[in-house]
Amino acid sequence: MDLTEYIEKTALNVDKAIDRYFGAACDDLGKASAHLLLAGGKRLRPAVVLLAADAVKKGSSIDVVPAALALELTHSFTLIHDDIMDGDTVRRGVPTVHTVWDDSTAILAGDVLYASAFEFICMSDAPDNAKVRAVSMLARTCVEICEGQHLDMSFEERDDVSEGEYLAMVSKKTGALYAASAGIGAILAGGNPSYVDALYHYGQSIGMAFQIQDDIIDLVASPEISGKDRASDLREGKQTLINIMAREQGIDLSPYRCELTDSEIDEVIEKLERAGIISAVKDVARELVLKGQRRISILPESIEKALLVEIGDFFITRRF
Amino acid sequence: MDLTEYIEKTALNVDKAIDRYFGAACDDLGKASAHLLLAGGKRLRPAVVLLAADAVKKGSSIDVVPAALALELTHSFTLIHDDIMDGDTVRRGVPTVHTVWDDSTAILAGDVLYASAFEFICMSDAPDNAKVRAVSMLARTCVEICEGQHLDMSFEERDDVSEGEYLAMVSKKTGALYAASAGIGAILAGGNPSYVDALYHYGQSIGMAFQIQDDIIDLVASPEISGKDRASDLREGKQTLINIMAREQGIDLSPYRCELTDSEIDEVIEKLERAGIISAVKDVARELVLKGQRRISILPESIEKALLVEIGDFFITRRF
Repeated sequence: MDLTEYIEKTALNVDKAIDRYFGAACDDLGKASAHLLLAGGKRLRPAVVLLAADAVKKGSSIDVVPAALALELTHSFTLIHDDIMDGDTVRRGVPTVHTVWDDSTAILAGDVLYASAFEFICMSDAPDNAKVRAVSMLARTCVEICEGQHLDMSFEERDDVSEGEYLAMVSKKTGALYAASAGIGAILAGGNPSYVDALYHYGQSIGMAFQIQDDIIDLVASPEISGKDRASDLREGKQTLINIMAREQGIDLSPYRCELTDSEIDEVIEKLERAGIISAVKDVARELVLKGQRRISILPESIEKALLVEIGDFFITRRF
Repeated sequence: MDLTEYIEKTALNVDKAIDRYFGAACDDLGKASAHLLLAGGKRLRPAVVLLAADAVKKGSSIDVVPAALALELTHSFTLIHDDIMDGDTVRRGVPTVHTVWDDSTAILAGDVLYASAFEFICMSDAPDNAKVRAVSMLARTCVEICEGQHLDMSFEERDDVSEGEYLAMVSKKTGALYAASAGIGAILAGGNPSYVDALYHYGQSIGMAFQIQDDIIDLVASPEISGKDRASDLREGKQTLINIMAREQGIDLSPYRCELTDSEIDEVIEKLERAGIISAVKDVARELVLKGQRRISILPESIEKALLVEIGDFFITRRF
């Protein structure tokens, strides 16, 4: 099976589970909680949970689909709360929860998914000691995600964020949840501590690369492909790695902190490409993926291990 | 040991744990998360956790203080998020989190405590299967609290809420967390299913009575004693049991939906007392407490059982 097939198969399974548990909501809060989940998504974190579990399990087949769903719920909860904070109005091609309902309902909708994530971890078919470790890992991860989001917001008031600070933020904001996806999959499937550790750090590294690629996509992809506003980071003066590396090279992007035409955006991209910024940013992402892939070299050879390696490459070549 | 002593002792222990885990925060988000916790509080939910555990445990002494703290963290997270939704500016005598910082930081501060609650459940000294059950119960409880808060907000747009609807809302919004406090204490201490069930329903009933007493305190207590604005529910036209029962008796409280002087509030209270509303509301609370106390009559006699019975009485006689 190739990676595309695997991701599509996983997405179908996760969509089915989402539909079963959240598709029939008839009250307002239930609908608001389900809104973003039902809008689709690539379900990449669930795919990492399932692959990590299959890569370490010894023969026995354990059902970690509920845990895979738990990681998607966690992701969804953070998006709903982040969208309130960032004032974003569109996500996955649909209006954001706080836009359709209101801020209060969106806070509660996120809170409902948050709790459900922990409940689904407990519903996995795994030994209790593994579930307890998985719950603890998810809890610590959620704290890290909050810290990452808080750092990200605090960066908006600064124009001197360093590359190191950016990477530390991304490690929490995006790396932590991929780390937990791989780590929890491995824990629930009974992986030994060194495998769990390797997969955790693999997830963290490729998760950071994922975010850097997201920043590149925000700049270069057309809205039809990405499903998001083009160059919103540039317009909002976000401290992305692109912005930071440009500044370090003496390129000031602050004049572009305004509504931009497509040709103005193209002009910025050309300037950044000429200065080697885009390729330097891509190099950082590639290094992170390589680091992650090296971490899991200790795993026994398997199709799943090969797919985990491939996911790393996919994270930095994807265009949406 | 009498109840007052027990509650004070528990509060001291919980305060110590809070100080240890949250007192040293030096970053902004850490401080925001700790803000309300450090402002004090009666720590009644932790007291219920500890009493329930001691009432069912068979000889062995199990450390459920982390779980007691978990319930206080959950309570604190819901208050932080509720204060954003309700636009409340003062809580426990200090400015609310979103007032000192901002809405975004308050959302994240609540989210941090939310995750920490699950982590602390896992840190309890109890068998893993008990921890998994406790995590599931806390997760389901959090969903119920969100549903209760959502119902409560939806009531604000209505003037035809029935007593039954009010009680269903309060059961979720306040009853659920007291239910979980007693239930989780019993689960972690190894209580048999019928004890866990009895304590869960005990907590739910006395928790509902607690909320009804809160509504009475809001109306009658002076701000110096309650630490809150006097008659804020009346001013905001909240659908409390007082409001609902008054309406059913033909007393229209809507003219008081405005800024009120102390003598105007006194006038309302007198009117409600003459019509028997206050005592009818108190009767409902008393019935709930009796129902809760009856539920735990199956527990073996112990000092802790007696204190649990007493807490029920305290909930509806307290003046702050």
